[in-house]
Order: sequence, then C-alpha cells, then structure tokens
Amino acid sequence: MVNHRVKHAAREIRNQLVEQFKCLEQQSESRIQLLQDLQEFFRRKSEIELEYSRSLDKLAERFSSKIRSSREHQQFKKDQHLLSSVNCWYLVLNQTRRESRDHATLSDIYTNNVILRFAQISEDIIRLFKKSKDIGIQMHEELVKVTNELYTVMKTYHMYHTESISAESKLKDAEKQEEKQFSKSGDLNVNLLRHEDRQPRRSFVRKIEKIKEKRQAKYSENKLKCTKARNDYLLNLAATNAVVAKYYIHDVSDMIDCCDLGYHASLARTLRTYLSAEYNLETSRHEGLDIIENAVDNLDNRSDKHKIMDMHNQVFCPPMRFDYLPHMGDEVCQVSAQQPVQTELLMRYHQLQSRLTTLKIENEE
Amino acid sequence: MVNHRVKHAAREIRNQLVEQFKCLEQQSESRIQLLQDLQEFFRRKSEIELEYSRSLDKLAERFSSKIRSSREHQQFKKDQHLLSSVNCWYLVLNQTRRESRDHATLSDIYTNNVILRFAQISEDIIRLFKKSKDIGIQMHEELVKVTNELYTVMKTYHMYHTESISAESKLKDAEKQEEKQFSKSGDLNVNLLRHEDRQPRRSFVRKIEKIKEKRQAKYSENKLKCTKARNDYLLNLAATNAVVAKYYIHDVSDMIDCCDLGYHASLARTLRTYLSAEYNLETSRHEGLDIIENAVDNLDNRSDKHKIMDMHNQVFCPPMRFDYLPHMGDEVCQVSAQQPVQTELLMRYHQLQSRLTTLKIENEE
Repeated sequence: MVNHRVKHAAREIRNQLVEQFKCLEQQSESRIQLLQDLQEFFRRKSEIELEYSRSLDKLAERFSSKIRSSREHQQFKKDQHLLSSVNCWYLVLNQTRRESRDHATLSDIYTNNVILRFAQISEDIIRLFKKSKDIGIQMHEELVKVTNELYTVMKTYHMYHTESISAESKLKDAEKQEEKQFSKSGDLNVNLLRHEDRQPRRSFVRKIEKIKEKRQAKYSENKLKCTKARNDYLLNLAATNAVVAKYYIHDVSDMIDCCDLGYHASLARTLRTYLSAEYNLETSRHEGLDIIENAVDNLDNRSDKHKIMDMHNQVFCPPMRFDYLPHMGDEVCQVSAQQPVQTELLMRYHQLQSRLTTLKIENEE
Repeated sequence: MVNHRVKHAAREIRNQLVEQFKCLEQQSESRIQLLQDLQEFFRRKSEIELEYSRSLDKLAERFSSKIRSSREHQQFKKDQHLLSSVNCWYLVLNQTRRESRDHATLSDIYTNNVILRFAQISEDIIRLFKKSKDIGIQMHEELVKVTNELYTVMKTYHMYHTESISAESKLKDAEKQEEKQFSKSGDLNVNLLRHEDRQPRRSFVRKIEKIKEKRQAKYSENKLKCTKARNDYLLNLAATNAVVAKYYIHDVSDMIDCCDLGYHASLARTLRTYLSAEYNLETSRHEGLDIIENAVDNLDNRSDKHKIMDMHNQVFCPPMRFDYLPHMGDEVCQVSAQQPVQTELLMRYHQLQSRLTTLKIENEE
C-alpha cells in the first residue's frame, strides 16, 4: 500500500514530464505555424503592394506621356505648367508616382527582409526546441533516477525494519524462555531442592542464555542497519523533494526560456522593420500631400491671369494710341473753343455731366 | 495714306479681339481638358484603390477565417491570443482590414465626391465662357463702333478741311483779282483818269467784290464746319483712345476674371476634399501602426511563459511532496545521529561540503 503510493507519485511525475514536452512541442509548433502564416501573409501582401504600385505607376505614366506628347506638339503649352492649377495636377501625378515607388519599396522590404527574417526565426525555434528537449531529457532522467532511488532506499529501510522487528521478537522469545526457566528453577529450589537432578538443567539454562545473547547481537545489528537505512531514506527523501521542487520551480521555467531564447526579440526586430517600412511610406506620402496642399494654397487666379496674358503678350498688349492726323498743313491740333463753337461745347459738356451724375446714381443704387 | 494708317490700326485691333477670344477659348478648353484628365485620373485611381482594398480584405479574411476555424476545432487555443506574439499577428491582420476599409472609403470619396465636383467645375467653365464671350462681343462691338466713328469723323474733318482750303484758295483768287483790279484802276487813275470810260469798270469792280464777299462767306462757313469737324475728330480721338485703353487695361482683365469666376476656388475646394480624404487615411493608418508598435513594445517572453504555464496548469504545477512513510509502527521520523552513525554522517557532511566548495569555485570560474 505504501509502496503503491510512492510508485504512483513517481508515475504521475513521469506523465507530467511527457506532457511538458508535448506542451513545449505544441508551443513551438504553433509558433512555427504563426511564422509560416506571417511569411505567407507578407508574401501575399508584397504581391498586393507590387500590383498596387504598378497600377499607380501605369496611371501616372498614362497622363505624363500625354502631357509630354502635347508639349512636343504644342509649343505654347511649354510654360503652361506655371499656371497654379496645372501645377496642382502635375503634383497629383508626382504624388502618384511617389506612392507607386514607396509601395514598391514596401513590397521589396517584405520580400527581401521581413519574410527571410521570419524564416530564420522558424529555424531558430526548431533548433532551440531540440536543444531544450535534450536538456529536458537529461533533467527528466535525473528526476526519474532520484525517485527510483527513493523507492529503493525506502524499500531497503522497510526490509531492515522488518528484519529488526523480527530480530526483536526473537530476542523477546528468548528472554521469555529464559524467564520461564528461571521461574521453574525457583519452584524446584523450593520443592525439589533435595533431588540431585540439577546437572542437566544447568546446561539447558546456559544454552538458553547463549541463544539470548546471539539474538541480542542479531537485534542490535539489525537495529543499526535499520537506523542507517532510515537515515538514508530520510536524507534521500529530502534530496528528492528538493530536486523535484527545484525542477518545477526553476528548471521547467529555464527549459521554456531556452525554447524562447531570442524569439520575442527577433520577432520584435522583424515587426519593427515592417513598421519602420510602413512609417517611412507614411512620411513620404505625407510630404507629398503637403506639397500638393501647398500648391492648392497657392492656387491664384490673379497670377494665372497675368501668366496667360504674358504668354499671349501680342494678343493682350494695348495697341498704339490713335494719333491726331492733321489734314494737309492744318496746324491746329487742339479743340478750338472760340465763338460760336464754345456755346455748343459748353452745352455738350453740361449734358455729359448730368448724364454722368445720373449714371453714378444708378450705379450706386 | 493717312486713312490707310487708321484703317490698319482698327483692323489690327479687330484681329487682336478675335485672337483674344481664341485665347480665352483655348484657355477654357485646356481647363476642361485638365478637368477631364482629373476626372479620368480619379476614376481610374478609384478603381485601383478599390482593387487594393479588396485584395487586402481578402488577405485578412483568409487568415482570420483560418484563426476562427482553428479556434473552433481546438478549444485550447481560445486564450492563445493573449500571448503577446499572437496579439501582434492579430493586430497586423486588424491593420490590414483597417487599410482595406480606408482605401475603400478613399475610392468612394473619389467617385461620389471628387469626380462629380470636377464635372461641375467643367460645366461652370463652359457656362462662364459663354457669358464672358457675350459680354466680350458687346465690348468688341463698342470698340469697333468707336474706331469706325473715329474713321468717319476723321474723314469728315478731312473733307471739310479740303473744302475749307479750296474755299480759302478761291477767296484768295477773288482777292487777287480784286487787287489786280484795284492796281489797274490806280494805273487808270494815273493814266486814263480823264477818259470817261469808268462806268463799265465800276460795275465790274462791284461784281468782283460781290464774288469776294460770297467766297468770304463760303470760306467762313467752311472754316467753321472744318473747326467743328476737327473738334469732333479730336474729341472722338481722345474718347477712342480712352475706350481702347480702358478695354485693354481693365475690360480684358475683367472678361478673363469673368471666365475664371470661382474656378480656382472650386478647384481648391475639390482638391482639398481629395487631400482631406488622403490625410484621413493616413491618420487612420498611423493610428493602426501605433497600436501594432505598442503591441511590439509589449512583446514579453516572461508574461507569455507564465500564460502558457497557466494555460497548462495541470502539466506544470509541482507535484505533492514525497512524505516520510515510516514502516509499521516505527516511531522514529528523524535522522538518527547517535554513535556509531554520527561518525559516518559527519564524514559524509564534510565530503559534501568540500564537493560543494569545489563546485562553487568551478561555477565561479
């Protein structure tokens, strides 16, 4: 019954150890699965980014080539880009090209950096799991050894104790017989003291005494053996409990740490590479948008109007003033305001003035 | 020759006016072309954003559904997401879904807002160009009218001046004749004063005087007409120059302004809508990346280890201590250290101590 308890406990521990390996293996497997998913994810995302990049590039190129060809055919459009509205459009195209470039870079970083690192982490996990398992196996063997030893020393103690008990009971038997003999000889002393039949009785008593001495010796020997075995058992018990406690409190944790070695750090480094690529894309995108926003802030109809008028200078420049062309030798070149023209001019002047006043009033209304 | 110059100048102006319309039309056309390009650009970009969004969504869904199904099949993985590494993976998927959503929104804003607005601006340009052209035609008619008038009044002035010159020369002829007559009659007075042939001569002189008076009157009349015509011409000249200057300095500019009315503001508003959509996407993207970054910062092997050990509690919990199992009625439950066991124990103790010291030294080395 007692043996059974120890054996059961030892078997329980062995089962736990097996389960612990299973658990670590499962953990490694789910990490490898996770890393495989991440690789697959970034492989596909890399493709998506590249497709997106190509579409954007094609889009920008379609309009850029149109602009180039129209510039070649129509010289006058050469400076058109100076118009603030056209400038916005060109910047929108630039931004598209920039986005295209940035997403291509992202795709490249995924493929040539992030994915490779994830693969490396997977390999590390497999390598470290193997190493941890090797160490674990050693530790498990040690545990099994000490529990087996404990069982052995306990059994030894039990054996010696059994022997000690049996030696003790034999010694007690001998002591009882001796006592019986002594009490018989007491009776004889009282009743049969006169009979000369004491000789055979004396040798019998001595025989009993000898047996008792032998049993005493045997008992002492067994008791010492039992004490030693018990000491052994007790010391082993403490040692086993210490080893088991150490294993469960420290070693298991160390074994997991060994499996984990660098996993979180490598994962963090790789994810930071991914994040940094994404943040860089964002910064670039933001810069581009700011450039467009600045151009939108600078949309200016007045300056555009002047640019257009400058571009078509010959169309918008005021013509020469009409000069006074005096007729053959006419030397008068001013309005002549002598009588009788004066009266007419004054009349006309007053008419014009009143008309102007009327117009001003109308305008103000 | 003089007529030719004025006519030429007027024709030049008319040509310029035609060119100005052409220029405005060209400007409107290139704006409409620009807006068409922008619409086409954003229509295609909207498609690209939608494709990108769908690809990202499909990608995220592929792994999310895998996670869902593995959760259903393996109950133990239910709490696995609590592991910091798995958490990062889930957040990367969340970010992908977020990007998908944001790019779909972008696509939607392009289609249902930006493109429609560009179309509206195009319509406004056509409408305003028509209106500006109507106003321009009126202004051009006015210009042509004043330059034609100028030509007419100049011709009138030239005509009256010619008449005035001819009247003057006719008057001068008459005056010369009169003078000749006077000097003849003076000679006569000297040489033929005694002859009584003065009667017919007197009537002749009176006739000449009458002619001179008539010519004087004609001349005065023509001179007045010429003065009036010159005045008219000079005033018309100043007015024409003023009208032409006003047209070239203000009216053309106003006409262009009328064409431009609201164009830059509408374009700016629409581009700001586009920018705001892009900035919103960026902000959202940034938020998502920050969440992942935070999760990466929180990657923690210690807490993950404890989570794993908690999840598999029965596998990692320390077993019961091995108890001391005394053999049938053995009441000793401690290490017995009486003689002669004591000597042995002490020896073993010293051995262990020296071994421990050796190990410690080795360990330190």
